[in-house]
Amino acid sequence: MDIQSLPSRLLENAVQEMSSLPGVGRKTALRLVLHLLKQPREHVERFGASFITLRNEVKRCRVCSNISDEDTCSVCANPRRDHSAICVVENIKDVMSIEGTGQYSGVYHVLGGIISPIDGVGPSDLTFEELTARVAAGGVREVIVALSTTMEGETTAYYLYKKLHGYPVLISALARGVGFGDELEYTDEITLGRSIKNRTPFENIFGSKQ
Amino acid sequence: MDIQSLPSRLLENAVQEMSSLPGVGRKTALRLVLHLLKQPREHVERFGASFITLRNEVKRCRVCSNISDEDTCSVCANPRRDHSAICVVENIKDVMSIEGTGQYSGVYHVLGGIISPIDGVGPSDLTFEELTARVAAGGVREVIVALSTTMEGETTAYYLYKKLHGYPVLISALARGVGFGDELEYTDEITLGRSIKNRTPFENIFGSKQ
Repeated sequence: MDIQSLPSRLLENAVQEMSSLPGVGRKTALRLVLHLLKQPREHVERFGASFITLRNEVKRCRVCSNISDEDTCSVCANPRRDHSAICVVENIKDVMSIEGTGQYSGVYHVLGGIISPIDGVGPSDLTFEELTARVAAGGVREVIVALSTTMEGETTAYYLYKKLHGYPVLISALARGVGFGDELEYTDEITLGRSIKNRTPFENIFGSKQ
Repeated sequence: MDIQSLPSRLLENAVQEMSSLPGVGRKTALRLVLHLLKQPREHVERFGASFITLRNEVKRCRVCSNISDEDTCSVCANPRRDHSAICVVENIKDVMSIEGTGQYSGVYHVLGGIISPIDGVGPSDLTFEELTARVAAGGVREVIVALSTTMEGETTAYYLYKKLHGYPVLISALARGVGFGDELEYTDEITLGRSIKNRTPFENIFGSKQ
């Protein structure tokens, strides 16, 4: 099927927008858009508006930078969570992953990325300052580094360790149940749950480098 | 990863809307929505608005029911097309498929579906009346039935033949190069192009049933 020339500029426009999504080719985009075209107007309006509303109205938790509808996310606002343990993750998907294991009762800190010179992401692009402020404010017993075990993740973890090891907190990392080179979000829940339970003091990992 | 409980109602809402698309599961929907969340606001607004605008503003050609930005589609408005030949198709995707072969210079008629008692689609749900009116108005030499060779397609074709065979037009069908049970939109262009060139008089197919 030739889908280079669509019979409508509006259709062409919608197909182009749909195919801007990662992993959605032009043929799939056309199929999805034609599906939408068959739906009632109210449905399509709800569909389109949901992304605009999300983008414009969703907030970042002022404590941990997790995604939230309120100024403070539901984890940070929960008095039954252990606020003396902070689990540092790359992004909000990782928060969902760890929450999904049901093994963790502390709070989080979302870095918003990892240090990656190739992608031009340095420490100042991430929420290290906010994390240091949280630790410096006191009441924090442990910082758990839960980053992917890739080169960038290890670099970020080491930077974090250097930045925090002057404070009276235990810095720990996920247990080495996570294989080297694995992406955190694709790790199964059992491995992930076990590795957050068996987290190990940072010295055991980076001790030789000091 | 457990994605049953998302940290934001707005996110949950957007993920639900995204997963309403055919073939998009909850996990894929989350990935796509998080991608959108990282885009600039203007991009997301353009994205969401494109589907709403398409749904609200796109028109059906008043002649052939094909999708169009104008009252009359670009095929029907083209004086160089052969307006004495009408190719009857199920939907607008089939128009694109046949246009893609570059083998057809006539015009189209989009039925908007096929007769399917199981899905509750009867002749009155489709544009048979409009087609009959076009043929009755005169100037039509040939009606080419280009429907999928499924049970429903054959039923629809036979209904159409019965409805039109009193008029002085040649009713033809796609050549039987299309295998029985094939969906039209997945047929390769060579087969489809050949079958519209070698279309055969209707009598040769349904003659024995009369």
